[in-house]
Amino acid sequence: MRASESTWITINAIAILKSDMTQAPTSSDSLVDKVVETQYPIEPTLQNRWSPLAFSDQLVEPEKLRSVLEAARWAASSFNEQPWSFIIATRDNPTEFDRLLGCLAEGNQEWAKSAPVLMISVAKLNFERNGTENRHAFHDVGAAEANLAIQATALGLYVHQMAGFDVQKAKELYSIPEGYEPVDAVALGYLGDPHSLSDRLQERLSAPRSRKPLKEFVFTGSWQQSSDLI
Amino acid sequence: MRASESTWITINAIAILKSDMTQAPTSSDSLVDKVVETQYPIEPTLQNRWSPLAFSDQLVEPEKLRSVLEAARWAASSFNEQPWSFIIATRDNPTEFDRLLGCLAEGNQEWAKSAPVLMISVAKLNFERNGTENRHAFHDVGAAEANLAIQATALGLYVHQMAGFDVQKAKELYSIPEGYEPVDAVALGYLGDPHSLSDRLQERLSAPRSRKPLKEFVFTGSWQQSSDLI
Repeated sequence: MRASESTWITINAIAILKSDMTQAPTSSDSLVDKVVETQYPIEPTLQNRWSPLAFSDQLVEPEKLRSVLEAARWAASSFNEQPWSFIIATRDNPTEFDRLLGCLAEGNQEWAKSAPVLMISVAKLNFERNGTENRHAFHDVGAAEANLAIQATALGLYVHQMAGFDVQKAKELYSIPEGYEPVDAVALGYLGDPHSLSDRLQERLSAPRSRKPLKEFVFTGSWQQSSDLI
Repeated sequence: MRASESTWITINAIAILKSDMTQAPTSSDSLVDKVVETQYPIEPTLQNRWSPLAFSDQLVEPEKLRSVLEAARWAASSFNEQPWSFIIATRDNPTEFDRLLGCLAEGNQEWAKSAPVLMISVAKLNFERNGTENRHAFHDVGAAEANLAIQATALGLYVHQMAGFDVQKAKELYSIPEGYEPVDAVALGYLGDPHSLSDRLQERLSAPRSRKPLKEFVFTGSWQQSSDLI
């Protein structure tokens, strides 16, 4: 995978590991079974979120889109600065859809062109209140996008965030002013049939989803000293 | 409010605006009524999240703490890099609690000392895979912390994120190596009685929670051109 195709967590798939292994998984399609058992229980909206490569051609209802953006709106931010903006295009507006699609890395365009909604997030780099650098601008955009993804999941929608897009092109195409920085691109929609993907994308999708164990990133007392709490 | 007291969304409170205004709000305590009506419906875990200043002295059950961290674990990240780590201290371990509390800005220590759990998040700045800069390190830590806050809300817990802490002191105290950067501090626990806060903190807490309207940050076609979709 080239850097230009960088995406969020599309190293996906896993046959769901049942705690009761006497019961065989009901399906073993690594392109479809993407929801994994977590080590400790978490909310369904968090557990069921993953980043698809195949989107259905079904359009997203405007009221669902509004709820998804409203969820981003209510994220926490440093000094309540709300440093996030979203440029959005839907497939029923081909001019705008193609303009946004054209900002994506080629490897992302290949699958993202089938998504009904595309977005580019933008961070305001300095505080409105005093013009100084907002160290948490990207952090807070990340929080808003996590909220967006969770609300999407609750509505049966899926989100795929992409690092692979042309930041400079986006700035120019959308006249994004000095002091604002495009952060990432987002594809949103209903799930499509992953078997319709190219062999290369099917292979990418079939990789198991995984995360580091908690012991490797939750510390107490000193760096890399695993916390007894977990 | 001084910069050193910077916190996430503690500009709080609002008498809940009922869409049916013939029905008076059941309570008008601006220190307690912090959940606002949203413009469009969103998940309860997103709507009910806000950042308190008063925490109960009730300890957080270890299994809840594990679920909250597990939620962070399953956030999306660029190249599935999972650039987040968390240093955690609980009040039943006074040595570690005081060590972490001592990293916070004085204005935050004043209220955060009553929280049963404190954390500092840390970002890995370069990709594990090739050592190049991870432009989305802070972004992805922000997503993990949003997940954490949402899981906390689902379990009846509250989170208050703080920008106001001594980054250099945290690096030294916890031997955080080159290439890693402390991002923010987090207080976590059950709600306490806001009327027990100092007058200054009560005043801070009584300010209404607010967000920019969607029209101000959702654009189509060009910067600051409000999208017709919302």
